[in-house]
Amino acid sequence: MSGVYKMVEIVGTSTVSFAEATKEAVKRAGKTIRNMGWFEVVEQRGAIKDGAVSEFQVKLKVGFKLED
Amino acid sequence: MSGVYKMVEIVGTSTVSFAEATKEAVKRAGKTIRNMGWFEVVEQRGAIKDGAVSEFQVKLKVGFKLED
Amino acid sequence: MSGVYKMVEIVGTSTVSFAEATKEAVKRAGKTIRNMGWFEVVEQRGAIKDGAVSEFQVKLKVGFKLED
Amino acid sequence: MSGVYKMVEIVGTSTVSFAEATKEAVKRAGKTIRNMGWFEVVEQRGAIKDGAVSEFQVKLKVGFKLED
Amino acid sequence: MSGVYKMVEIVGTSTVSFAEATKEAVKRAGKTIRNMGWFEVVEQRGAIKDGAVSEFQVKLKVGFKLED
Amino acid sequence: MSGVYKMVEIVGTSTVSFAEATKEAVKRAGKTIRNMGWFEVVEQRGAIKDGAVSEFQVKLKVGFKLED
Amino acid sequence: MSGVYKMVEIVGTSTVSFAEATKEAVKRAGKTIRNMGWFEVVEQRGAIKDGAVSEFQVKLKVGFKLED
Amino acid sequence: MSGVYKMVEIVGTSTVSFAEATKEAVKRAGKTIRNMGWFEVVEQRGAIKDGAVSEFQVKLKVGFKLED
Amino acid sequence: MSGVYKMVEIVGTSTVSFAEATKEAVKRAGKTIRNMGWFEVVEQRGAIKDGAVSEFQVKLKVGFKLED
Amino acid sequence: MSGVYKMVEIVGTSTVSFAEATKEAVKRAGKTIRNMGWFEVVEQRGAIKDGAVSEFQVKLKVGFKLED
Amino acid sequence: MSGVYKMVEIVGTSTVSFAEATKEAVKRAGKTIRNMGWFEVVEQRGAIKDGAVSEFQVKLKVGFKLED
Amino acid sequence: MSGVYKMVEIVGTSTVSFAEATKEAVKRAGKTIRNMGWFEVVEQRGAIKDGAVSEFQVKLKVGFKLED
Repeated sequence: MSGVYKMVEIVGTSTVSFAEATKEAVKRAGKTIRNMGWFEVVEQRGAIKDGAVSEFQVKLKVGFKLED
Repeated sequence: MSGVYKMVEIVGTSTVSFAEATKEAVKRAGKTIRNMGWFEVVEQRGAIKDGAVSEFQVKLKVGFKLED
Repeated sequence: MSGVYKMVEIVGTSTVSFAEATKEAVKRAGKTIRNMGWFEVVEQRGAIKDGAVSEFQVKLKVGFKLED
Repeated sequence: MSGVYKMVEIVGTSTVSFAEATKEAVKRAGKTIRNMGWFEVVEQRGAIKDGAVSEFQVKLKVGFKLED
Repeated sequence: MSGVYKMVEIVGTSTVSFAEATKEAVKRAGKTIRNMGWFEVVEQRGAIKDGAVSEFQVKLKVGFKLED
Repeated sequence: MSGVYKMVEIVGTSTVSFAEATKEAVKRAGKTIRNMGWFEVVEQRGAIKDGAVSEFQVKLKVGFKLED
Repeated sequence: MSGVYKMVEIVGTSTVSFAEATKEAVKRAGKTIRNMGWFEVVEQRGAIKDGAVSEFQVKLKVGFKLED
Repeated sequence: MSGVYKMVEIVGTSTVSFAEATKEAVKRAGKTIRNMGWFEVVEQRGAIKDGAVSEFQVKLKVGFKLED
Repeated sequence: MSGVYKMVEIVGTSTVSFAEATKEAVKRAGKTIRNMGWFEVVEQRGAIKDGAVSEFQVKLKVGFKLED
Repeated sequence: MSGVYKMVEIVGTSTVSFAEATKEAVKRAGKTIRNMGWFEVVEQRGAIKDGAVSEFQVKLKVGFKLED
Repeated sequence: MSGVYKMVEIVGTSTVSFAEATKEAVKRAGKTIRNMGWFEVVEQRGAIKDGAVSEFQVKLKVGFKLED
Repeated sequence: MSGVYKMVEIVGTSTVSFAEATKEAVKRAGKTIRNMGWFEVVEQRGAIKDGAVSEFQVKLKVGFKLED
């Protein structure tokens, strides 16, 4: 993976699962970041409403290659 | 989120996924705890039987507001 | 759980979810390891392609009993 | 400190400082817990509103002696 | 271990060893908690008096099954 | 907190306290970032001059919502 | 300690103490591993039965020299 | 910061705040250490008396330059 | 170091050493960031090809002063 | 525990148990340090010889009050 | 990186640098492991003799693909 | 390694590499400490000047045997 990469940290949310929250976050990040290559899960949390899980939240680091 | 909150630690189990184990744990906690607001994933483990995952286990901290 | 156990570290991959990646890793480990009893999630990462999550990766420790 | 102790985890909030949030949390816990002896800071966070810190939040473990 | 479990954190003390402090803590917890299944060591500390160890202290998380 | 959030890491400084350093950092970040919602303390350090604390330094992660 | 070493992770159990669980694990590992030189404690847990500690469990990394 | 530095670990106490406890510890360390340059917060705890915080305790690492 | 600082996370790569990977990452970051003052190593990894290390990778946080 | 305290880090060894290694380390430290008040276990390791544990090693932080 | 991977933990040594110790460990591991793809640095230590560094030691996790 | 050991924490600096910074720190420590046996890397950081790495800094724990 020669070259230099940058990591950005984002938090995705989903009412369904941690996997969906991950996908949402990456899709959104892709609107402004090119060349994304990998992600790392940093934290998993969520919201509770009326005694039930109402939201899954995943904090991610996303790595992408810096252009020369 | 002014006020004071308490955290309790629980472990949920599911044969399906980490997300389901999380939901189960929160639902059960809600039987005796009111005002639950959020959860934090502390640990993810599971059981294996006959060479396959038989159970997903998620340890959570659940936060809820203490009444005045 | 009297006796002595060994832990091996493996990484599973899936295009669907962390739970599926976990199942894949355990299933593959079961080809050469007997008596597997539990797993512990060590790390969750993944690959991104064309601005979307292309792979979920889960690093696990798997514990199994050593025969006498 | 002979005997057995229990730890509970609480979160205090304050608009002023981390120290005040700590005091608030301990004071509230004292309404229902006797014999509290010490606390340990687990996490420090806060809320932001209109571009400024609006709340300091401190997550604490509080230890108290169990009566025989 | 299907079902939902709760973790409580306790600190045991002993003048003899970490193992004895662990046993003391669990025995005391058993006075009010049923269905305890496992413990996890969180921290090991102790007191010193007149230049010698006077007390071993073990902080534990104890897990027990919540009844339906 | 549905939607996607971004975290940025900043370090605030103050000659008075950790709380003031936190406020300074958030205020400065607000010059270029909109929709900031929360912060997390990552590290607390400081400078010493002539045998006394001359500066409190707080490293923070600040979370803010990404617009659609 | 020139040369290259390998670490394996094992879990020992004992009804007596963490020290005994450590000894058991190392003794068992020695049946198949030669040149073991040191161990590192990774985790200490245990089982509870009828309100009392029934088993001490120690997870270890064991290091041994690889032959040329 | 060329040269070699030494770190010492100290604990300061204050009835007022974590910041004051930090200042106290550094001031006391300055009685016997020259050339102190920075500190790092390692742990924040405190004492509770009669249901209220009676003392803030801050564990610090203090760095100072070794003279040639 | 009065003022407010920002941290960015980057990954440098080198076929030679961790030190070279660090230098590469900082040099590249300097193309778009002014006032860089320090870096912190977060992670060290690398790639293996044909049974030999083919690349050293260093993940860094880089701190730089925000202009007023 | 008003006042300022210093921590020193020591490693004790014993052929018997972690508890004995702890006692040895504290006893030795007491030859040159007065007012020792508590210890914290930082790490537990050991040596292996001829396929059996030959030594328990405990790394401790020891806290003692600095005189005014 | 679809498929399942295994991690092994090894320690390399060198009188020259951490990078050389890394290379040595990977080269040795390659004698018995095929398909090695990456490594992760877990720990860096070393030996001192006659008041100077005599050896750099690097503990690594090495990942390799399991064949179907 | 029977006996009791003490750890001291030092920070070495070098314009060349982490390995050189390590050597510098150990050499300097050897001026006042006898019987040094090993070191452990605690942290790696560095300074940046004019957009390039100007200094590698390594924080180490150094262990040495206490004489009887």
